Amino acid sequence: MRRALALATTPGVPLGPNPRVGCVLLAPDGTTIAEGFHRGAGTPHAEAAALAEAGEAARGATAVVTLEPCNHTGRTGPCSEALIAAGVVRVVFAQPDANPVAVGGAGRLREAGIEVVGGEMIEEAQAVNRAWTFAIARRRPFVTWKFATTLDGRSAAADGTSRWVSSRAARLDTHRLRALCDTMLVGTSTVEVDDPELTVRDELDEPVAIQPLRAVMGLRDLPADRRIFNDRAETVRLRTRDPEQALADLFARDRQHVFLEGGPTLAAAFLAAGLVDEVVTYVAPMLLGAGRTAVGDLGIGTIADALHLHVSDVTVLQGHDGEDTNVRLTMRPHLRRN
Amino acid sequence: MRRALALATTPGVPLGPNPRVGCVLLAPDGTTIAEGFHRGAGTPHAEAAALAEAGEAARGATAVVTLEPCNHTGRTGPCSEALIAAGVVRVVFAQPDANPVAVGGAGRLREAGIEVVGGEMIEEAQAVNRAWTFAIARRRPFVTWKFATTLDGRSAAADGTSRWVSSRAARLDTHRLRALCDTMLVGTSTVEVDDPELTVRDELDEPVAIQPLRAVMGLRDLPADRRIFNDRAETVRLRTRDPEQALADLFARDRQHVFLEGGPTLAAAFLAAGLVDEVVTYVAPMLLGAGRTAVGDLGIGTIADALHLHVSDVTVLQGHDGEDTNVRLTMRPHLRRN
Ligand SMILES: NC(=O)c1ccc[n+]([C@@H]2O[C@H](COP(=O)([O-])OP(=O)(O)OC[C@H]3O[C@@H](n4cnc5c(N)ncnc54)[C@H](OP(=O)(O)O)[C@@H]3O)[C@@H](O)[C@H]2O)c1
Ligand SMILES: NC(=O)c1ccc[n+]([C@@H]2O[C@H](COP(=O)([O-])OP(=O)(O)OC[C@H]3O[C@@H](n4cnc5c(N)ncnc54)[C@H](OP(=O)(O)O)[C@@H]3O)[C@@H](O)[C@H]2O)c1
Repeated sequence: MRRALALATTPGVPLGPNPRVGCVLLAPDGTTIAEGFHRGAGTPHAEAAALAEAGEAARGATAVVTLEPCNHTGRTGPCSEALIAAGVVRVVFAQPDANPVAVGGAGRLREAGIEVVGGEMIEEAQAVNRAWTFAIARRRPFVTWKFATTLDGRSAAADGTSRWVSSRAARLDTHRLRALCDTMLVGTSTVEVDDPELTVRDELDEPVAIQPLRAVMGLRDLPADRRIFNDRAETVRLRTRDPEQALADLFARDRQHVFLEGGPTLAAAFLAAGLVDEVVTYVAPMLLGAGRTAVGDLGIGTIADALHLHVSDVTVLQGHDGEDTNVRLTMRPHLRRN
Repeated sequence: MRRALALATTPGVPLGPNPRVGCVLLAPDGTTIAEGFHRGAGTPHAEAAALAEAGEAARGATAVVTLEPCNHTGRTGPCSEALIAAGVVRVVFAQPDANPVAVGGAGRLREAGIEVVGGEMIEEAQAVNRAWTFAIARRRPFVTWKFATTLDGRSAAADGTSRWVSSRAARLDTHRLRALCDTMLVGTSTVEVDDPELTVRDELDEPVAIQPLRAVMGLRDLPADRRIFNDRAETVRLRTRDPEQALADLFARDRQHVFLEGGPTLAAAFLAAGLVDEVVTYVAPMLLGAGRTAVGDLGIGTIADALHLHVSDVTVLQGHDGEDTNVRLTMRPHLRRN
């Protein structure tokens, strides 16, 4: 299963609406017959890839797969039937398929007399497809809110200048995180004021091949010359101020992971609606003492109502060439009060 | 030397105006004859302690000591003379004694025909007595400024409530750091408004035996019933608004390490004067969105003038029993602009 999970996370596999899956076919003596992984929407599933590689050798084999084999005909046929037809005698999978249209693979395999074991390394497998798992279960995309701040909670100086609060290492890291999402979301003011391009760029500042969807939320009309409307990536307007509505719209577009990059007004609306699932903060070790605050008003009046976050990771982003060392905190909101 | 440094940092040695020193006496065959360390002002120096333990066995020995043996008669006689009288033939030391009244030990030992080697593991030895080394060289105490903040730069909510921004682990850690200093400094407003006791307390919230000096800076008169004036520790009034003057006054009182705990006005004055040598920040993973900012106005108008800090340590203070995990950043100011 460890090997199957490694296959699932093969670098370079484009993210799409489909989960990442890996599969290993084992002979009765435990040796590996074939391996496969899913390369993105429209390509063969991991099981199909491994079966194709194995050919006749699959007869009598055990299939180890990170996700319960699917039971429906999408762009490819059901994997349950393919495994049965190939003569596989045992299937071990990690995560059950929660996708209502694909569910039922394990049952179908058992009906055909195949021994089926589910749940092995389920947590690791769920982590591989965290946003997909979340979106399938909750019927809305997972929302990561990212913000950058100085040590004293500022995002710009008194005169409005803010270039750069984050270090180069933190900006590169942000692009890496953007690339793991399928949607970038901002409010209309950010587009009007900052005119960001909102593309994912590599270390040479070149846009990468596969770009997340860019989404702008809010009611007002925006000038067509804003950079977010250029042809470097797809862009949608979400003409609403209701976070729930916006997420429903994005879910209907097969979106599973929204990267919310501001501004403070939009972030506050998502926080207030309980629709932020993860917070990523880059802390720059500098002091301004004045200027725009990084987080807008949240309607919190007293300390007992503070929004507490659970820290899941702290990473030091070492500065090079005299650049500041930044600290990235990854957190999830929770309901407990201190 | 490694053993001598370990002796120097023996836990429980009370901090005082004297440096911490360890000494090992070695026989010509390399075996240890005796060990000693300095237990604080008024007690024998490390060399004297080791020589007393060795007695006649010191004849022909090598003395390994973390600080250049002193050459003056303070509360104890000069160590140089004691080493000569004991018949030690070789002295290896780490850090040269920069204290103008004690300097000259190495020269005196060489005059007496003793082989002297200095500078071994000098950086480690300087770190053991960081504040002492700094204070001797700069003729003023080392200043550590500590502040606590939410992720969004707040120290209190909109209604002024602030109990607790920091986790219990962070508060305990603060007391540990206070205990490493010899002076706690606050401004008059903090005393008037918050009425802190400013003592060092242990895990059971009991005051520890040896308390740093408490110092209050500012011109106004303060009510005598403030807790800072209780008899749990000594307290001085520094009737000035000039940070340089305040530090000169404290240095004259043999103070080497000031722990500046606020408020924001006083901290800003020290920052502006370039008299903050270390910044310790506790970041609590909570959002308030409004309320008092943790850092006051620093007179910075544009991002190019931001005060950049060099991060020397990031420590995660794990929360227990559902408490927040806090992050401690230790930094020193530097002049570079990003
Ligand atoms: N610190 C950071 O990391 C960061 C990141 C991004 C931006 N910024 C800064 O933030 C500033 C823009 O601030 P902002 O907060 O006004 O920008 P914003 O959040 O991007 O946009 C606010 C606008 O979004 C629309 N909107 C959509 N949903 C809404 C809702 N639920 N509630 C209220 N409004 C909603 C409204 O405009 P309609 O009238 O169109 O509906 C509203 O005026 C810029 O100057 C930018 O530099 C900072
Ligand atoms: N976030 C934190 O970690 C933290 C820590 C401590 C306090 N606080 C909060 O800070 C608030 C007090 O704020 P604050 O900034 O007014 O307190 P402060 O810095 O303790 O005291 C300011 C006063 O100190 C005197 N002073 C001494 N040297 C000065 C100088 N160089 N420049 C200006 N004034 C000087 C002045 O009073 P004179 O007229 O007497 O000279 C001045 O009014 C309290 O409410 C407290 O809760 C926060």
